[in-house]
Amino acid sequence: MKILCEISVRHVHISKEHVEILFGKGHQLKFVRELSQPGQFLASERVELVTAKSTIKNVAVLGPERTQTQVEISRTDCFALGLKNVPVRQSGNLVDSPAIILRTEKGEVKIDSGVIVAQRHIHMDTKTAKDNGFKDGQIISVKFGGSRGGTLNNTVVRVHDNFAPAVHIDSDEGNALGFCSGEVEILA
Amino acid sequence: MKILCEISVRHVHISKEHVEILFGKGHQLKFVRELSQPGQFLASERVELVTAKSTIKNVAVLGPERTQTQVEISRTDCFALGLKNVPVRQSGNLVDSPAIILRTEKGEVKIDSGVIVAQRHIHMDTKTAKDNGFKDGQIISVKFGGSRGGTLNNTVVRVHDNFAPAVHIDSDEGNALGFCSGEVEILA
Repeated sequence: MKILCEISVRHVHISKEHVEILFGKGHQLKFVRELSQPGQFLASERVELVTAKSTIKNVAVLGPERTQTQVEISRTDCFALGLKNVPVRQSGNLVDSPAIILRTEKGEVKIDSGVIVAQRHIHMDTKTAKDNGFKDGQIISVKFGGSRGGTLNNTVVRVHDNFAPAVHIDSDEGNALGFCSGEVEILA
Repeated sequence: MKILCEISVRHVHISKEHVEILFGKGHQLKFVRELSQPGQFLASERVELVTAKSTIKNVAVLGPERTQTQVEISRTDCFALGLKNVPVRQSGNLVDSPAIILRTEKGEVKIDSGVIVAQRHIHMDTKTAKDNGFKDGQIISVKFGGSRGGTLNNTVVRVHDNFAPAVHIDSDEGNALGFCSGEVEILA
């Protein structure tokens, strides 16, 4: 089975409360373009990620607002920011993840936890999953072609009525595999 | 077969002529520590890599001097520096690779070509290669365990009397695979 693969570069999801601190009272995230997952969008706002060691500027904000502020960075970013023990996790699982500061010209927020490296994953709508014999939470492998090709194991399948089929890897994974865009092969 | 795997972070090899421009006439690279390959060493000198888009500071210099100055960076670095079409190459093959500026407090050198992403490779001494049935130039795969494990194809075997057995991957590959240190499995 082949599925579209997309590279998720570093980004943040922000709670409504933190959006107001960072961008002003009553502020609503501004839509730039849809992402592959229905309802999700790239916003025009940007933030800085600040640690004692360094700062990463111009970090993308994805909308809509979430209940918890969450920072998804690559392991390369972890080294640059001096963050140790950032867990490789599914989105939303933020227990015992490191603290960080989000900063804009208008304000700053320190979150006590919320920094993760996103575990590579495959979004699938319920019908696609059922038709192809995949279950939510299943661990599979993904095969990449090309001159830097290879196979990434331990990729988690996430099934939801509202998902669209897409493999999501981070920038380290995309760069290591020399991947730009296109489809990849799912190995059950 | 299992072999030690090492992550090569971004670094430069510098010609004698360029060492003198960057560090002063008659300067010799200062030894800090041996690397796994006999005769190769980490030097105490550092350079900046400069492009029209950005600068990467504090880049490691490896000794001894080489006949050609060569800059080995990750694909992540390529994006940061705004360098397109950096080839994935074996060390020493610099034809049609991009230009870059190397800078220190004492001087700067613009090389017209010499920036590559190192092709992942396996150093083997002649006896190890013969005993295990590997040939110089052979393309094999390398399997990584762990929670971010996977297999990297298109890894080139390099055989030389003076080599010591070691798989060399770059920081993108190490980060994508969640690799820190240890041995990996060679799949012929």
